[in-house]
Amino acid sequence: MQPRPGKFEELASLVKQMVEEVRKHAGCLQAEAMLAPDRNEIAVFQRWENTEAFSEYLIWRSKQDHLDRVYYLSVSEPDFSSFTLITPPKASQPGY
Amino acid sequence: MQPRPGKFEELASLVKQMVEEVRKHAGCLQAEAMLAPDRNEIAVFQRWENTEAFSEYLIWRSKQDHLDRVYYLSVSEPDFSSFTLITPPKASQPGY
Repeated sequence: MQPRPGKFEELASLVKQMVEEVRKHAGCLQAEAMLAPDRNEIAVFQRWENTEAFSEYLIWRSKQDHLDRVYYLSVSEPDFSSFTLITPPKASQPGY
Repeated sequence: MQPRPGKFEELASLVKQMVEEVRKHAGCLQAEAMLAPDRNEIAVFQRWENTEAFSEYLIWRSKQDHLDRVYYLSVSEPDFSSFTLITPPKASQPGY
């Protein structure tokens, strides 16, 4: 995410709050809020047990107001990339 | 990282090996190898206790052959971004 001018702290605070919510979701293994004020960049790293858990979270998230606030505070729509971990979080967990 | 055509598996395997080495380094809190074959993308996520530990790792890494192999197997030089975590790994650990 790239905060609009003067909005870095406000977006960082919102993202921090959202990350704390993410961590409470079933199937969330990890969520980290990452700041690079010198590059005017805010990022989030999430690990999920499986795609179903992540999809359920996205549905829940789309019903909250927070995402609209993120868009409002950002220069452009946030980039989003999804990856498969080489070493899955659990032995029983195949790549997805 | 963006593997050269036909080199996805080879680069993924090398990155997996490098990530396992990273995890053994003093001060490394986490290292994950991330694959997106559909986008021809390989990424690494690392968390470090502090910048000193990460710098020491970089010095060690620059003395290995692996980095040359990564460059050889990649279309271009890997992107690199460093962030500060909003919630530091330890209560005693200030942002850096």
